[in-house]
Amino acid sequence: MEKSSSSSFLGPGMGLDIANAFFKPIEQTAPPSPTKRHTKISVIGAGNVGMAIAQTILTQDLADELALVDAKPDKLRGEMLDLQHAAAFLPRTKILASVDYAVTAGSDLCIVTAGARQIADESRLNLLQRNLTLFSAIIPPLARYSPDTLLLIVSNPVDVLTYVAWKLSGFPSNRVIGSGTNLDSSRFRFLIADHLDVNTQDVQAYIVGEHGDSSVALWSSISVGGVPVLSFLEKQQIAYEKETLESIHKEVIQSAYEVIHLKGYTSWAIGYSVANLARSLLRDQRRIHPVSVLAKGFYGIDGGEVFLSLPALLGRGGVLGVTNAHLTEEEAQQLRDSAKTILEVQSQLGI
Amino acid sequence: MEKSSSSSFLGPGMGLDIANAFFKPIEQTAPPSPTKRHTKISVIGAGNVGMAIAQTILTQDLADELALVDAKPDKLRGEMLDLQHAAAFLPRTKILASVDYAVTAGSDLCIVTAGARQIADESRLNLLQRNLTLFSAIIPPLARYSPDTLLLIVSNPVDVLTYVAWKLSGFPSNRVIGSGTNLDSSRFRFLIADHLDVNTQDVQAYIVGEHGDSSVALWSSISVGGVPVLSFLEKQQIAYEKETLESIHKEVIQSAYEVIHLKGYTSWAIGYSVANLARSLLRDQRRIHPVSVLAKGFYGIDGGEVFLSLPALLGRGGVLGVTNAHLTEEEAQQLRDSAKTILEVQSQLGI
Amino acid sequence: MEKSSSSSFLGPGMGLDIANAFFKPIEQTAPPSPTKRHTKISVIGAGNVGMAIAQTILTQDLADELALVDAKPDKLRGEMLDLQHAAAFLPRTKILASVDYAVTAGSDLCIVTAGARQIADESRLNLLQRNLTLFSAIIPPLARYSPDTLLLIVSNPVDVLTYVAWKLSGFPSNRVIGSGTNLDSSRFRFLIADHLDVNTQDVQAYIVGEHGDSSVALWSSISVGGVPVLSFLEKQQIAYEKETLESIHKEVIQSAYEVIHLKGYTSWAIGYSVANLARSLLRDQRRIHPVSVLAKGFYGIDGGEVFLSLPALLGRGGVLGVTNAHLTEEEAQQLRDSAKTILEVQSQLGI
Amino acid sequence: MEKSSSSSFLGPGMGLDIANAFFKPIEQTAPPSPTKRHTKISVIGAGNVGMAIAQTILTQDLADELALVDAKPDKLRGEMLDLQHAAAFLPRTKILASVDYAVTAGSDLCIVTAGARQIADESRLNLLQRNLTLFSAIIPPLARYSPDTLLLIVSNPVDVLTYVAWKLSGFPSNRVIGSGTNLDSSRFRFLIADHLDVNTQDVQAYIVGEHGDSSVALWSSISVGGVPVLSFLEKQQIAYEKETLESIHKEVIQSAYEVIHLKGYTSWAIGYSVANLARSLLRDQRRIHPVSVLAKGFYGIDGGEVFLSLPALLGRGGVLGVTNAHLTEEEAQQLRDSAKTILEVQSQLGI
Repeated sequence: MEKSSSSSFLGPGMGLDIANAFFKPIEQTAPPSPTKRHTKISVIGAGNVGMAIAQTILTQDLADELALVDAKPDKLRGEMLDLQHAAAFLPRTKILASVDYAVTAGSDLCIVTAGARQIADESRLNLLQRNLTLFSAIIPPLARYSPDTLLLIVSNPVDVLTYVAWKLSGFPSNRVIGSGTNLDSSRFRFLIADHLDVNTQDVQAYIVGEHGDSSVALWSSISVGGVPVLSFLEKQQIAYEKETLESIHKEVIQSAYEVIHLKGYTSWAIGYSVANLARSLLRDQRRIHPVSVLAKGFYGIDGGEVFLSLPALLGRGGVLGVTNAHLTEEEAQQLRDSAKTILEVQSQLGI
Repeated sequence: MEKSSSSSFLGPGMGLDIANAFFKPIEQTAPPSPTKRHTKISVIGAGNVGMAIAQTILTQDLADELALVDAKPDKLRGEMLDLQHAAAFLPRTKILASVDYAVTAGSDLCIVTAGARQIADESRLNLLQRNLTLFSAIIPPLARYSPDTLLLIVSNPVDVLTYVAWKLSGFPSNRVIGSGTNLDSSRFRFLIADHLDVNTQDVQAYIVGEHGDSSVALWSSISVGGVPVLSFLEKQQIAYEKETLESIHKEVIQSAYEVIHLKGYTSWAIGYSVANLARSLLRDQRRIHPVSVLAKGFYGIDGGEVFLSLPALLGRGGVLGVTNAHLTEEEAQQLRDSAKTILEVQSQLGI
Repeated sequence: MEKSSSSSFLGPGMGLDIANAFFKPIEQTAPPSPTKRHTKISVIGAGNVGMAIAQTILTQDLADELALVDAKPDKLRGEMLDLQHAAAFLPRTKILASVDYAVTAGSDLCIVTAGARQIADESRLNLLQRNLTLFSAIIPPLARYSPDTLLLIVSNPVDVLTYVAWKLSGFPSNRVIGSGTNLDSSRFRFLIADHLDVNTQDVQAYIVGEHGDSSVALWSSISVGGVPVLSFLEKQQIAYEKETLESIHKEVIQSAYEVIHLKGYTSWAIGYSVANLARSLLRDQRRIHPVSVLAKGFYGIDGGEVFLSLPALLGRGGVLGVTNAHLTEEEAQQLRDSAKTILEVQSQLGI
Repeated sequence: MEKSSSSSFLGPGMGLDIANAFFKPIEQTAPPSPTKRHTKISVIGAGNVGMAIAQTILTQDLADELALVDAKPDKLRGEMLDLQHAAAFLPRTKILASVDYAVTAGSDLCIVTAGARQIADESRLNLLQRNLTLFSAIIPPLARYSPDTLLLIVSNPVDVLTYVAWKLSGFPSNRVIGSGTNLDSSRFRFLIADHLDVNTQDVQAYIVGEHGDSSVALWSSISVGGVPVLSFLEKQQIAYEKETLESIHKEVIQSAYEVIHLKGYTSWAIGYSVANLARSLLRDQRRIHPVSVLAKGFYGIDGGEVFLSLPALLGRGGVLGVTNAHLTEEEAQQLRDSAKTILEVQSQLGI
């Protein structure tokens, strides 16, 4: 199976003879222990988002094996070959691709980017129903071939679809995560850093809640180089106006639309964002990311089972905890409103 | 200029006040010495190839400043924003984009990926004429804004267009390089490594000559883990046939077509390949790459000024030398035939 | 000069002939522009600290050229060879070593780790006088051979010796930096992160002031995953006591002594810490580090010219600014007291 | 256990309260699957060699958990703390240290650097006997706590001690490897590359056999940028003399002695060399390294069970095969002579 990906390249006659003559194999008196496996990541969907994720994972050497699944066999094989041809420039990673989910067997992390595209005049609910159908074909085989895998959902609307993936997988909630507002938070940090002309990595700032227009910026979370920005502004008696801070947040919300308007889709930033989550999860980094997790019971969200982005501690076990940040009453209310909206959508879906 | 890329994001009223209050600047009694500049790379053409190159350069942290130029301002701005939004996940690189070549000023390396696409029923010569016109608009401003830059040409047909770039720039030949058969050689190594199931980085193998159908595989250059493959086969008395080795070479030639047929274009492998060249050049790595260089005087090529891929030693000064490999008479003849063909095309172009 | 480091290895007879035959050099019609130089770092002092710094810089590929200077030629040559022998495992970096400061010519960054060791019963002032003598032999040649270099002082007592280096070099203050409390802050972050069992990179926390027993922990700067810890504790009404937080700070101060007591010296952590500063400086990262800078005029320090660690914005130009954090009156007073103490020492030194 | 390493740092009263308040843990309905473990490396011996290896592994992010064992608890704890204090500058790796081998439990790779030092006038055999006694205390507990681990022996004389480790562990031979001539080969490549002024990574060259004075340089394995050097010299009719090539090989043999003479020990190069082997093994790189493996049955070595360095294919399963290179009769005879010498030593040891 594994070699089949490239065996068509090999000329007839050559092959086994040379390979056999070239190495004398060591007799393996026992196979490598099954408890000592390498790291395998599968990416479902070989579109612009899926491939940006796959390529960034490859460049950053995060996996020993990378499997791609897509419904279009030609596109899929073309992408696999294009990645394989770079082998001379990269650490060795086995790259597999198939329309068959068997190729994902034994994954440590499955990243789902597949999603239905909106048709003209289609209602949001109809689109969601089609995505539900799509996920019904994706999630169960993933869960069957990799019963211990973590699931990372990137497809939109990410919060509802992460819930859908959780239900369809039957997995414990700590193993089902949505990419959520991780990228929104990165954009937020970039805009603040660009404004102050400092390195983005010296900016801490979190956007949580529903990924999209109703996301919640946690103003109290912003600090730059150890200086909490809100209290800095107060002490400096800088006459900032609430509208100004909100305009930055609006720019964040707009920026996804803007990129899609300009180039037709987003790819690079979501690729880096998801590779970053993959590292925190698989290398057990215990970093705190704003990602979509089962939010019931946190911050007064209690109307039902709903996924929303919260600052979550991520490691090899998936979601290890949620930071107990202090929200303002307004922020908490926004979260609860988003939860309610999402729950209504979910009830319409009948899941 | 530099901040303009993102200044539209910033809400009115905010901005200078906070930034000014946040840092007390150190009075710089003298500006940083102009002899101690950071590393700047420009990529011309924001299509699939150009963006795969730009993104790989960014991930591998090869530049302090990255400038993109394209004729389509919307696409260009979308790509710039998409890369900038990943700032939280990467070392800091200043990313600029403009339709104006002024943005490339002071580059250490300019990578040209722009090229005209073939129109139905268009003759090869007509296409080349259109590319000549295109390069006449690209190369002179690049050379004017960065008189000390290295030029790396990726656009096809790469050997002729590297010659064109050399002529239009007026640069010494050591500073004008075509990506040539660097990627072909990588594919060759991958196929051999995949066949023997070893790491591609333990395979040495060079393809030289004209990038494309008439490229020349240097069989004597192939060694794996210190074992010269040709003499190994002889000593093993393995009944290999010449056709078998040639079928591997044919697979290499076919693989570019195959990827284009399957996914519509190639991007990832050429991205890694060119980023690899950028590293060897800018970090003065003195590595030996098969790239398109002024071939006159090497291996009996003497009919005129022509660029062909030869094993070249690359460093901060560009092309530092060409390896004096021993070719068979057949290999040398193939090189000379390619040179002649290219020279004929060049004479038709009237340059 | 450059090749002399290893030329003694080469057997007689071999050598130039092969090298000349192997490559046909490209005629360089013009030398690489002097404005496009590679990155050179010099490390003064090849002891445990200097070598840990040099080796980490090498592993992290931060320089194209690395020069070592020490007074002991045997030790120096042994360290150079030991690093050079790893060439097969690393990107290419030219490694030079000499007792002669000429080897540092054209450095972008000079890191000084050399220092006199305390003799039994020696007064602190006497030790300092001996270090002053030592620096008088180090700094002027460094400044002469690399008039544009940044100076990074690691030798202890770092604050006074950074002042000494500034005076002896005649450089503008933005180009003279002491490693200061950068490592103390890293230890502080590690202890907090270890306690909360999160990734240290999600902890922001700054220690400033004099490197050593009287350093100042900025409690208001501590935030973890976007949660300001002080206000978190207040809102949680956790009955923490001031002594508890101070005990963490005391552990930080103790930890240098503890490591020296246990293994005889510190090396690895200071190596990583200084390599981290080198990256921020040379790759123009604009990151905020607590390092020793000319503190006059900041936070009410106005008694004279004194170097103390403050949160400073670092980039290719050296110190670009100092963060305008809000200190408590107690914190500011501690800083001023340290400044006064250091000024008294400096006046005793007669510089 | 795991937290104990640093728990002494924590002030009384603080601690659990904050950590508990800070995160709301996710209820883990099932523990992370035991088949999906992180990567653990143990290093036995915290001397110069062991620590250079440990630090390079840490910088290169090769393990999720690193355990150090040494007989000197103070030195050991000092080294552990010194590495831990760098947490802010590195990806998160759990670092443990203990005099008790229990700390190594569940390792994927155990690297043994511990060894007895020669006493004045001590016979080689007596020294070896003392090392045998030392290994009797090291290998059995390693094998007991990590029954599936790979064993990588660095202690000298490496070939005999790798045999000893194999016998004492009871492991299949593919899981017991000596660092052998991997570093000798690196030095060889550096000297050739330095001479030709090319990147060492473009040089393929293997030294095999007994690590030390009687190692065997495989002249036919040397190729540079795809040019086999021996046949190049023949075709160029360069009047090289056998003594010249041998003088390079002698320089390699001398270089270890030279570094020890100059700085007292070797550390950096062996650190990089062993980290490089760790990567090939744990990341399943299938690279070909000259390392000490059970040589019986290869190249006519058949007098008994002996470990010698041969070009071996390394991956997650340990030694996967041995390259079937063509040796000259002289080279093969040298190998067999070394095997005989080592076998005699082993028989004297009575193992």
